[in-house]
Amino acid sequence: MTLMKRCLAEFIGTFWLVLGGCGSAVLAATFTAKDVTLGLDTSFPLGISFLGVALAFGLTVFTMAYAVGHISGGHFNPAVSFGLWAGKRFSGSDLLPYIVAQVLGGIVAAIIILIIASGNPDFALGGANPLATNGYGAHSPGGYSLLSCLICEIVLTFMFLLIILGVTDRRASVGFAPAAIGLALTLIHLISIPVTNTSVNPARSTGVALFCGNAELIAQLWMFWVAPIIGAILAGWLYLAIFAESRIPASVNPEVERIS
Amino acid sequence: MTLMKRCLAEFIGTFWLVLGGCGSAVLAATFTAKDVTLGLDTSFPLGISFLGVALAFGLTVFTMAYAVGHISGGHFNPAVSFGLWAGKRFSGSDLLPYIVAQVLGGIVAAIIILIIASGNPDFALGGANPLATNGYGAHSPGGYSLLSCLICEIVLTFMFLLIILGVTDRRASVGFAPAAIGLALTLIHLISIPVTNTSVNPARSTGVALFCGNAELIAQLWMFWVAPIIGAILAGWLYLAIFAESRIPASVNPEVERIS
Amino acid sequence: MTLMKRCLAEFIGTFWLVLGGCGSAVLAATFTAKDVTLGLDTSFPLGISFLGVALAFGLTVFTMAYAVGHISGGHFNPAVSFGLWAGKRFSGSDLLPYIVAQVLGGIVAAIIILIIASGNPDFALGGANPLATNGYGAHSPGGYSLLSCLICEIVLTFMFLLIILGVTDRRASVGFAPAAIGLALTLIHLISIPVTNTSVNPARSTGVALFCGNAELIAQLWMFWVAPIIGAILAGWLYLAIFAESRIPASVNPEVERIS
Amino acid sequence: MTLMKRCLAEFIGTFWLVLGGCGSAVLAATFTAKDVTLGLDTSFPLGISFLGVALAFGLTVFTMAYAVGHISGGHFNPAVSFGLWAGKRFSGSDLLPYIVAQVLGGIVAAIIILIIASGNPDFALGGANPLATNGYGAHSPGGYSLLSCLICEIVLTFMFLLIILGVTDRRASVGFAPAAIGLALTLIHLISIPVTNTSVNPARSTGVALFCGNAELIAQLWMFWVAPIIGAILAGWLYLAIFAESRIPASVNPEVERIS
Repeated sequence: MTLMKRCLAEFIGTFWLVLGGCGSAVLAATFTAKDVTLGLDTSFPLGISFLGVALAFGLTVFTMAYAVGHISGGHFNPAVSFGLWAGKRFSGSDLLPYIVAQVLGGIVAAIIILIIASGNPDFALGGANPLATNGYGAHSPGGYSLLSCLICEIVLTFMFLLIILGVTDRRASVGFAPAAIGLALTLIHLISIPVTNTSVNPARSTGVALFCGNAELIAQLWMFWVAPIIGAILAGWLYLAIFAESRIPASVNPEVERIS
Repeated sequence: MTLMKRCLAEFIGTFWLVLGGCGSAVLAATFTAKDVTLGLDTSFPLGISFLGVALAFGLTVFTMAYAVGHISGGHFNPAVSFGLWAGKRFSGSDLLPYIVAQVLGGIVAAIIILIIASGNPDFALGGANPLATNGYGAHSPGGYSLLSCLICEIVLTFMFLLIILGVTDRRASVGFAPAAIGLALTLIHLISIPVTNTSVNPARSTGVALFCGNAELIAQLWMFWVAPIIGAILAGWLYLAIFAESRIPASVNPEVERIS
Repeated sequence: MTLMKRCLAEFIGTFWLVLGGCGSAVLAATFTAKDVTLGLDTSFPLGISFLGVALAFGLTVFTMAYAVGHISGGHFNPAVSFGLWAGKRFSGSDLLPYIVAQVLGGIVAAIIILIIASGNPDFALGGANPLATNGYGAHSPGGYSLLSCLICEIVLTFMFLLIILGVTDRRASVGFAPAAIGLALTLIHLISIPVTNTSVNPARSTGVALFCGNAELIAQLWMFWVAPIIGAILAGWLYLAIFAESRIPASVNPEVERIS
Repeated sequence: MTLMKRCLAEFIGTFWLVLGGCGSAVLAATFTAKDVTLGLDTSFPLGISFLGVALAFGLTVFTMAYAVGHISGGHFNPAVSFGLWAGKRFSGSDLLPYIVAQVLGGIVAAIIILIIASGNPDFALGGANPLATNGYGAHSPGGYSLLSCLICEIVLTFMFLLIILGVTDRRASVGFAPAAIGLALTLIHLISIPVTNTSVNPARSTGVALFCGNAELIAQLWMFWVAPIIGAILAGWLYLAIFAESRIPASVNPEVERIS
């Protein structure tokens, strides 16, 4: 595959991650029936809650890594690309094009979410986390401090990359990597939505921040680039130093010819 | 397999999709215990909510694609058949018989749901989305406009077909396609039940609309044929143009002799 | 494996199905924190709801079919044994010992649930469905009629067996059968807990009915033998007539030497 | 792999189990939006409930067993190590180093949870189960007696080990063991969080108990070592006596060279 096609796969995958994860949060997390003419119990909590949002984020990666993992490796996340590079599974010369594609995917997804949501007369950008943006301090969903949020994002991205490096290791069970990686992302959201709204992915944070209509959240964006990338690089180094067998391909699909 | 047997598999699969997806929505989404003699807390939200309905839709495809995917390819959805045809994975001469079988499956499922639900003395067809019908505008569960609903259905069916075309590609991990496709349908419902009640499948929309007792919803049915099929065909063309390796079988099960 | 060891595997598997499915319903479905000294919000619906119970039932089969499917075939359900026999995948001479083992497994599980639950000072057998028993009419959780409940159990067991026969077919993807069968049981519960509390399994119904302390529920037990077995046998015949390739082993694990 | 590297994998895996399972319980189980400025409905139960916590515990094992199962066998639990030793799948000389690594992993995870949680101004250690500790009697979430809790932990650990021994048996489907074991842990939590807060894992119980700030919970810790280990050893003996084919490797990943 050419680099252009691989970047297109990363664009599509990151678009799906943000559309599915942030879209489900914006459109479906707290849904209740608006009036009795809907035939639904208006007091019943029909929305999907943080549990459904966590599942949605994980399933975006689960589905897309099986769909295009054999094309691009299925990163969909600048921190993952950095971590695989630190673990010597991904070429440094591909880092920038991959990250540009991922951020663009996140931006287009944010625009689509905004367009769909705007079709609801009750929709308005507002509150601490409009468009499912990430935040800390006053913009942490549960009011967690910057330090808590920083530690949380570093530790969870570190663990995410250790899992990715392990399940794509040649000695691991063939074929299960996209399932394990996707469900790891679900798990990470189950833990940390109340803390930072969960990033572990700078492209996911950037797309929605740019269109959320609140400059404070753009000002907090630095943290969701710095913390995930630090955690990812540390994991790459650790895996390489301790568990790595040899230099092996980074793709979630083992039989891929990755660096074309 | 003869075309008749393959169509029977499509009939059974689409019957299951509508029975499981719409059936769980009608029977179980907002259940609460009716009185204390049941020994259940009457204020506890026991129903499965949109999260359970999303899971149910996905599991119908997850289970049936493993069960009869090796017979018919496991479409269960006219948009999927159109998209695979556009991607040159499915013969145009089989389109009509497949779609007839799928719509009949949806119709029979709607009848069974209606029969079971009618055994509850409190059951009545009514509200904006009786029998879990799809709708827009006044019949969107969350009150979304026609334009929002149209974009939502086109984009999500487009992404659904990209995933289907990717995971059934010969280069993808063998055996995981039904899991990934089923869970993609769960994800799509997690995002969009509040918008259109989620179709991405004209056969799912048609069966329940015909028996929902509200002519307005039949009048909205055109949208749930047009939007999913547009999205699906665009995805078929895009995959063919960019990612396709060569002409390969469309079945979710790789060893199938598909076009008999 | 000797017949005795295979029956022991069926005993253990059905014990697990009832302990996990009915146990989670009895112990965890509607849990809320009892007082503020627990440090938990007493108004928050912490219990697992019907969604969690549906997941629990499915995961009992998912886990045990992978664990002992290579020993006994992983039926854990008299209707499944009947259906596989009708589909010529299981020897009629093994039917009775398998069913005895399954019913004993259900009985022991009901006793264990009762012992654990009795350790809670607030526990009392009572209400329409004590110990998660199955029922119709006045004992249907949602008040569904006998006819609705009968149709529901027949149709769902019929579909359950079609899925089991399909995913254990030699042409299906190797290894995924326990996942698909387990998640099919989850799906069936997502649809029908409000109707009959979901049986599709006479052994699951029998164990808890015997210890629920309400003779009305024992009097309704006939239905949860008749309906599932009718549905299962019809599915076995249909699959054999239409989809069967040839006589193939019934085990969920293809490399098993099944009829020893 | 050297014993040191295998112990490091056990440390990381148990750290992940406690961080994900107990962390999601502490941070996310009962989350509701604190005020309307968050743009979220303050009455909507956004938290992940016991269902989400059960899923989180299972996904820690699902993901880590795929990631490092080929290194250490993926126990992450002293009871699992004891049970595999009783079933003659694990060397007795490795028991102590494995258990030390697992307990240390649980301790470090408890510290990280405490640090993150302390960044929330509303956080305080208190109530019956601070830091998601396990307890019985007055410290059982639902008020269950010591006897109920003891039986519950013994039976569930016994079944957990039977599943682990079955799915890692050479005759079982290759590759599915981590999925089945992880989802078995989810199932066990769906049943028993109201009883003991669910342990079946002495390392999980120990880490959080040491930092929960309540000496009563440390005094109850003996039970969460004794009961799981009794259940596990009984399962190891039973499997060895009845179902074992021969002496086979214990790893969740079949191609591992386990006892280096």
